[in-house]
Amino acid sequence: MTRYLPILEWGRQYGRDQLTSDLVAALIVTIMLIPQSLAYALLAGLPPQMGLYASIAPLLAYAVFGTSRTLAVGPVAVVSLMTAAAIGNLGITDPAEIAAAAMVLALLSGLVLLVMGIFRLGIVANFLSHPVIAGFITASAIIIATSQLKYILGIRAEGETLLLLVTSLVAHLSETNIPTLIIGVSATAFLFYVRKGLRPALQKLGLSRKTADIATKAGPVVAVALSTAAVWALGLDEWGVPIVGDVPQGLPPITLPVLDVDLWLQLLGPAVLISIIGFVESVSVAQTLAAKRRQRIRPDQELIGLGTANAAAAFTGGYPVTGGFARSVVNYDAGAETPAAGAYTAVGIALATLALTPLLHYLPKAVLAATIIVAVLSLVDLTILTRAWRYSFADFLSVAVTILLTLTLGVEVGVSAGVGLSVLLFLWRTSRPHIAEVGLVEGTEHFRNILRHKVTTHPEILTIRVDESLYFANTRYLEDYIIDRVARSKGLRHVILMCSAVNDIDMSALESLETIDHRLKDMGVRLHLSEVKGPVMDKLKRTHFLDELTGEVFLSQYGAVQTLTREGDQKDAA
Amino acid sequence: MTRYLPILEWGRQYGRDQLTSDLVAALIVTIMLIPQSLAYALLAGLPPQMGLYASIAPLLAYAVFGTSRTLAVGPVAVVSLMTAAAIGNLGITDPAEIAAAAMVLALLSGLVLLVMGIFRLGIVANFLSHPVIAGFITASAIIIATSQLKYILGIRAEGETLLLLVTSLVAHLSETNIPTLIIGVSATAFLFYVRKGLRPALQKLGLSRKTADIATKAGPVVAVALSTAAVWALGLDEWGVPIVGDVPQGLPPITLPVLDVDLWLQLLGPAVLISIIGFVESVSVAQTLAAKRRQRIRPDQELIGLGTANAAAAFTGGYPVTGGFARSVVNYDAGAETPAAGAYTAVGIALATLALTPLLHYLPKAVLAATIIVAVLSLVDLTILTRAWRYSFADFLSVAVTILLTLTLGVEVGVSAGVGLSVLLFLWRTSRPHIAEVGLVEGTEHFRNILRHKVTTHPEILTIRVDESLYFANTRYLEDYIIDRVARSKGLRHVILMCSAVNDIDMSALESLETIDHRLKDMGVRLHLSEVKGPVMDKLKRTHFLDELTGEVFLSQYGAVQTLTREGDQKDAA
Repeated sequence: MTRYLPILEWGRQYGRDQLTSDLVAALIVTIMLIPQSLAYALLAGLPPQMGLYASIAPLLAYAVFGTSRTLAVGPVAVVSLMTAAAIGNLGITDPAEIAAAAMVLALLSGLVLLVMGIFRLGIVANFLSHPVIAGFITASAIIIATSQLKYILGIRAEGETLLLLVTSLVAHLSETNIPTLIIGVSATAFLFYVRKGLRPALQKLGLSRKTADIATKAGPVVAVALSTAAVWALGLDEWGVPIVGDVPQGLPPITLPVLDVDLWLQLLGPAVLISIIGFVESVSVAQTLAAKRRQRIRPDQELIGLGTANAAAAFTGGYPVTGGFARSVVNYDAGAETPAAGAYTAVGIALATLALTPLLHYLPKAVLAATIIVAVLSLVDLTILTRAWRYSFADFLSVAVTILLTLTLGVEVGVSAGVGLSVLLFLWRTSRPHIAEVGLVEGTEHFRNILRHKVTTHPEILTIRVDESLYFANTRYLEDYIIDRVARSKGLRHVILMCSAVNDIDMSALESLETIDHRLKDMGVRLHLSEVKGPVMDKLKRTHFLDELTGEVFLSQYGAVQTLTREGDQKDAA
Repeated sequence: MTRYLPILEWGRQYGRDQLTSDLVAALIVTIMLIPQSLAYALLAGLPPQMGLYASIAPLLAYAVFGTSRTLAVGPVAVVSLMTAAAIGNLGITDPAEIAAAAMVLALLSGLVLLVMGIFRLGIVANFLSHPVIAGFITASAIIIATSQLKYILGIRAEGETLLLLVTSLVAHLSETNIPTLIIGVSATAFLFYVRKGLRPALQKLGLSRKTADIATKAGPVVAVALSTAAVWALGLDEWGVPIVGDVPQGLPPITLPVLDVDLWLQLLGPAVLISIIGFVESVSVAQTLAAKRRQRIRPDQELIGLGTANAAAAFTGGYPVTGGFARSVVNYDAGAETPAAGAYTAVGIALATLALTPLLHYLPKAVLAATIIVAVLSLVDLTILTRAWRYSFADFLSVAVTILLTLTLGVEVGVSAGVGLSVLLFLWRTSRPHIAEVGLVEGTEHFRNILRHKVTTHPEILTIRVDESLYFANTRYLEDYIIDRVARSKGLRHVILMCSAVNDIDMSALESLETIDHRLKDMGVRLHLSEVKGPVMDKLKRTHFLDELTGEVFLSQYGAVQTLTREGDQKDAA
């Protein structure tokens, strides 16, 4: 029972100490989350209250079903961008329809995550390689930051890809609203200062590093408060500064996602991508934070936790959510001890929807844009390109293609192509395995590549080490290699296939080995195997291959060469 | 130059001996090919002369560009079935349009093969595993045989999948034409006897095994001649026996494939599948026959040879062709020595189109159907299911899904799903690698699984051998495994990762190793590597990983344990 309801585990030992720690963390996260949730809703192309709604019920659901003690769930930048892209593709313009589509997307994401959780398919997320994730996050951050420039400039601009966005921005540049620009640029500058320069300044004033660190998280709230006050006092909205406008006051409504089969089918693909990417982002941060405190999270249960959180968003007027990186780190640093901190944050946001929404009327959109830009630019890391280039061409190609396609063709194409390419490159590499001819390292029983090490070999014995499992994609390559290699040398009597790196032999490869054995037999050469792993040997024993093999199977390569050399000497003597 | 025009190589040494051998082989193959080409055209849903046309120019093209000495190119059963399926999907009924589509399909197949040849992409064919090919061929043969029953019964029946075919056959069963049924069943029985019983009978009469073998290949021609004569003499066509009817007399026309973008796009997918499957079938038989005579074929040049053959078919009123299994074996057995035999066969078929076509008017379609049924039933091999089941579940699943989907959803879905599934199963397996804890086999320097062998271990040293390359799909699995394993045992000071089976470490895995190293360091345990392969070591040396690693990298596992044990003893002594 506690397996599926982690709250029963930590809830039983919940005491006053934890309550205090969790309340403090929740307060700080709430202050950080109010402007963030408004801003990410703007990024997703949704009304601001949907960001607030997505920060209430989902947090409560995760507190019950999630396994991370410190993950802070809610709207995040990348998922918001993907939501905007998915809804943009639908070609609808009616705000009510857009909001309905966002809720359907949340429901589908929830269902996808729950199904993955129930069938323990968390492993699917492993197919997003680090280079693809890094490339995708960097490219998304660039697109997000660019997409917010229109709010800083106070102009209209549309476009899902970088090129379209920039073209649209340039076309409307002359319409720039000067008061908006002033607000936007000052807010951005202020937030950059808060992020980079404020902490050292506060530390100089005597605050501890940690306190100073947390204090800086209130920066966006300060920017929101000051700019709202300024717009209201100076009547800047009359000068054309776009403001948030009326935000409905009150708790989230209970919503029922529309049952439109066409819409569901159109959003299913994007929902799968959003789920997997959200899951990967969330699990990475949850695992990192858990490891710091020697705790463990359970990825399959995390799928359930995030699934119920998204389903909760769908039924309370929200949109897709996941665990956020920056927010979770703040939650952790502020001392959150249990998922209850998330529940208290939800209460905080709920109070805000009850009391604060009228105050948001004069909030300039440019300030929300500034908070997004400052947050996402820290995610841009182009050094991944040079690091990958130095490490391996395959990894570089994955990063480069992911970045390039995300920027030019959009987030969905970018990440799908990245995953597809990295799988293809892996298959390509395994289909042309590294094959080494090995000999004995003198003074040991160890065999290594004759081209790299000083080794001794025997003229009648050829030992080939294949550095890959033998499977359908590389069997013909191996066949060609061995037959060509044997045909080139005279006097050979034995070929030993050293299987220390052969982790599987599938049925195609088994047939190839039979072919190789037959052909070598015709050439007067025996085929032996050495260092065959247990699981592989188990499979071979179920076939006739070992009975028909011209040679033997040796436990160790050293034993193989010793036996075969001795046999040879005896023959020569006789 | 001879690289791309193999004819320049063998043509230079062409002498009288080869001429004689090739002429004999060509004569036998021609006799076999006349009824086959008519029958396969029928199977493809095309007029009979297209089968003959596909057996002239393509053979000449392959003789110039192909590398196999004995491959017999022309219409084959599986490709004919796939052609019927591809054209069936277009939903056209006008015979002229159907013929035009078949020629476009041939041209596209030709282009796909040529492009693959130019870019040396023959390796792509390796992704068709043996189980998938075996399952696909068996299922196709069942569909083909069933599809021919309507001709044996003399009724109409349509359907691309087995279920539809059988339903349609049953629905029209009452319309069975008795004279047709008699002809069809006798022809089938006769051909089965020729295939199974005639050779022993001829051998008893004193013919050599080889001569008897070749004589049986004339069986279909005898059936065609006898049945045509019977229909003509008895006027059976008046009784409703479907006959071939008028076949245009004369050499193939020069045809220009229609330039219809929509049509081309619709046929591109099927053309890719037809090309790859045709190539695999062709290369397998070519390689087998070449190996018997210690010759080699060049798969990438084979793509060019088959590509030009298909292009030639497109421009001379033919349809997709490839190297046929049975026909090539006959060609080989009959003594063909060079591709010139194929050219002579083309001349033979050309003479037939000039002289014999009027005689084909009264040929009953039931006899052509009988030749197809007898030919393809020998391809049905359901033992592949039990063999795969015994060997491994993954291989069994590939075979079973391929057979099932080919039968129920058609050839294109079947083979695509088979390839996709076998790749997914490979990825799945590599994403959850076999991990063994190893110890020293006494009296050797060899380390094996502690669960399978009698080995000695050291309480402070844990050695883990991962039986897989470390890459993005399995790094999290490895992380979890090692951290969990180390957390469970007290007193550990060293973890050695034995990399004898690690054939690559990609960037994701490198980051995971760094994470593992950091976490182990926190637990007071050092991480070492042993037996790292040369190419992997080269990559690691380009990073900071080795500088930051808490432990060392050892050439051999034996050396690693010796050094670490000695260090431990020294510490204990001090």
